[in-house]
Amino acid sequence: MISGETMLEQLSGVENRGVIMAVPSKRVRHPEHPDRYFLSRSLAPEQVTRGDLMLFDLKSVPQNGDNRTPYLERFIHGEIYACRPDVASVVHSHATAVVPFAASKVELKPIYHMSSFLHTGAPVFEIREKFGMTDMLIRNSAQGAALAAAIGMGAVVLMRGHGYCTVGADIPEAVFRAYYTQVNAELQQRAVGLGGEVSFLAEEESALYDETNRKVIGRPWGLWKAKFAPKG
Amino acid sequence: MISGETMLEQLSGVENRGVIMAVPSKRVRHPEHPDRYFLSRSLAPEQVTRGDLMLFDLKSVPQNGDNRTPYLERFIHGEIYACRPDVASVVHSHATAVVPFAASKVELKPIYHMSSFLHTGAPVFEIREKFGMTDMLIRNSAQGAALAAAIGMGAVVLMRGHGYCTVGADIPEAVFRAYYTQVNAELQQRAVGLGGEVSFLAEEESALYDETNRKVIGRPWGLWKAKFAPKG
Amino acid sequence: MISGETMLEQLSGVENRGVIMAVPSKRVRHPEHPDRYFLSRSLAPEQVTRGDLMLFDLKSVPQNGDNRTPYLERFIHGEIYACRPDVASVVHSHATAVVPFAASKVELKPIYHMSSFLHTGAPVFEIREKFGMTDMLIRNSAQGAALAAAIGMGAVVLMRGHGYCTVGADIPEAVFRAYYTQVNAELQQRAVGLGGEVSFLAEEESALYDETNRKVIGRPWGLWKAKFAPKG
Amino acid sequence: MISGETMLEQLSGVENRGVIMAVPSKRVRHPEHPDRYFLSRSLAPEQVTRGDLMLFDLKSVPQNGDNRTPYLERFIHGEIYACRPDVASVVHSHATAVVPFAASKVELKPIYHMSSFLHTGAPVFEIREKFGMTDMLIRNSAQGAALAAAIGMGAVVLMRGHGYCTVGADIPEAVFRAYYTQVNAELQQRAVGLGGEVSFLAEEESALYDETNRKVIGRPWGLWKAKFAPKG
Repeated sequence: MISGETMLEQLSGVENRGVIMAVPSKRVRHPEHPDRYFLSRSLAPEQVTRGDLMLFDLKSVPQNGDNRTPYLERFIHGEIYACRPDVASVVHSHATAVVPFAASKVELKPIYHMSSFLHTGAPVFEIREKFGMTDMLIRNSAQGAALAAAIGMGAVVLMRGHGYCTVGADIPEAVFRAYYTQVNAELQQRAVGLGGEVSFLAEEESALYDETNRKVIGRPWGLWKAKFAPKG
Repeated sequence: MISGETMLEQLSGVENRGVIMAVPSKRVRHPEHPDRYFLSRSLAPEQVTRGDLMLFDLKSVPQNGDNRTPYLERFIHGEIYACRPDVASVVHSHATAVVPFAASKVELKPIYHMSSFLHTGAPVFEIREKFGMTDMLIRNSAQGAALAAAIGMGAVVLMRGHGYCTVGADIPEAVFRAYYTQVNAELQQRAVGLGGEVSFLAEEESALYDETNRKVIGRPWGLWKAKFAPKG
Repeated sequence: MISGETMLEQLSGVENRGVIMAVPSKRVRHPEHPDRYFLSRSLAPEQVTRGDLMLFDLKSVPQNGDNRTPYLERFIHGEIYACRPDVASVVHSHATAVVPFAASKVELKPIYHMSSFLHTGAPVFEIREKFGMTDMLIRNSAQGAALAAAIGMGAVVLMRGHGYCTVGADIPEAVFRAYYTQVNAELQQRAVGLGGEVSFLAEEESALYDETNRKVIGRPWGLWKAKFAPKG
Repeated sequence: MISGETMLEQLSGVENRGVIMAVPSKRVRHPEHPDRYFLSRSLAPEQVTRGDLMLFDLKSVPQNGDNRTPYLERFIHGEIYACRPDVASVVHSHATAVVPFAASKVELKPIYHMSSFLHTGAPVFEIREKFGMTDMLIRNSAQGAALAAAIGMGAVVLMRGHGYCTVGADIPEAVFRAYYTQVNAELQQRAVGLGGEVSFLAEEESALYDETNRKVIGRPWGLWKAKFAPKG
């Protein structure tokens, strides 16, 4: 049930698309130097190829004298890697189905097994609480650290008036979570629209599927890589 | 009114796509050995080709010493074939339009002739009732048998927190039902959203169209096969 | 704002696609014999080519000894042509956005200029009133005549539990109305979903745009023909 | 998160597509003669190429003896250029997500940073107020001037029963605003549908992002041009 177009849109929304598809180690955090991570130079995600990758330290300073223009929001990545040694990939997206939950008091919750990772919560990060009026972007280490604190040990964080992030132990996990956060949002939107009582997965059901999923995640990943990996 | 893209997505969600499109007999249950059925090895449906098919007995044990990795949920298929001698094809899907009905108290009912087969009901299978906390998958014969009991002599069963299954006397019928379950869900979702009273087909209208449909089902099937059959 | 895909889906839902795109006279009613009309043999609309056309009289009897299988519902066409000398093209469709209005007490009304033709009404034909329990299809002249009576001198009729029809003085007009009935349904669905008061075109505004549209309808038609005409 | 198809639809809905993609100066208002502007002859936007461009003065009279058929609604463009010396590009569209807001009492407001330009308001132009019953089109200078007055110094104006317009200092800005007006409408529609309280950007947040956006707008524009520029 994976629509190629939705997936493409999703992957296009991932700043690290080049890395996601190209890095053999399935890690965006540097495989040998855990205090370094990769990110494309500032470019529309669909246009990213391997040559666009830059290397950053966890303060999000470009390494090796690379003076190409980086993304303004690279601090999302640096600060999450700093807080979460278990994380080797971070996805940031503005997917249409998810942004409304970031603007609503209605909580995003796991409605089926594929999005069971949501059982650890999808808190809404409110940048205004700590930083007052901003342009909504994560532009420095302090803002990145506040976002990282909001995600805590979870898998997903929504960002009010902006988008969301997912994290994973490797690239397939972070992308899988980004994709199924979007699907769950669409499913929950529809279920709410039906007007009847909606049931969500129990905490224990979610936790049990999480374990299962670790063993079968290679299946969608194989498909996505076959379909969406840049040729270059 | 069949969108190629929706159909592709639908067929991609069908574990047996390779069989559906390739088997000349239009049966997934083995044409000569009714206690055997085909299913792909564990693979993203879009990637299945004829060589990926495995043969199982009704306890869902691989035959002929085939030791490739099977789907965890093959028991859905084995147990339905065991209970329903009239069924020669089973579709399991997570289609976006349908999952919300599996999580809602709102009942899926036939809103137009094309989905008249829903008049026999679209009960929601609640795995928790008999098996308590699980990972939501149908992982063994007991769970498969409980699902088969829920479908009874019907055409469709929804699975809470998971997806749905349809059955048919042959492949075109099971796929037709999988596709139009999805369309009906979308139509009913929209009709509910309009806020006014919604009318559904009467039982007798549905039964009458069911008969008609048996004679015209070859028409969409001819198109789908022409458009979606794997070339290999 | 015409999506190629939506349009393709729409045209695929038109039984007369072959005629619509191929007939130079822009008429489906026979240009020289007004008591004859063309319709494809029973076939998925996307697969229709010129050779599939059959000729019928207004009782929907095939002419010239043509014994190929006709559509069961050809009586829709024959009876509308019989009642409406001004009509030279009829479209029948099950488009997703429209069927919910055929099942709802909520009336379809023109929400913007492009669908101003809806100001003459989009009555819901209830086959049960005159024919009791049926398979919902228009299978004979009596049912076709009842449907034709429901459309009256209007442009559109919805069919409860089934779909809708549009008529036109020529093919571009009937297709334009079929397409924009669908767009209007989608727009009205969304406007209702916003929860606030919804405004529709005034009768006089609609009538004024109807006149304008007759002069500019060639513009979308030129595009659609360029994009969707069968090559063969 | 840009769907190629949605974007294509959007750009297809832009009367000036040929100009938008072809003009090196990124201006539709004539780069050297600010009292002149370009617009295609009357043609489906997808079919426009450079040779279809006509030149108009601000009263929307064709220049250089060009006697091809112009768009009836060219006065939208002429009158906005006359009122707004800061504007060098105007987009007019009927995008599906936006028209419902033009027919609803529910106000379109910025739900995330990308559509922050909506903070200056998206007033609904009611043609009936000044012109009574019309065919809803902007057919003369007086109607164009009234529309230009409604947009004021803002970025967007909705047109009841019709569509919307956006303006920009150059082509990328006007197209960006047309596209994200559509995305915002879709996001707000969904947020409203969730039934909970919805939060919008604060005025100051929007103004701050507006400034940021001026520096990064080249990124999506580069992608769109690469994907959608006509080859001819």
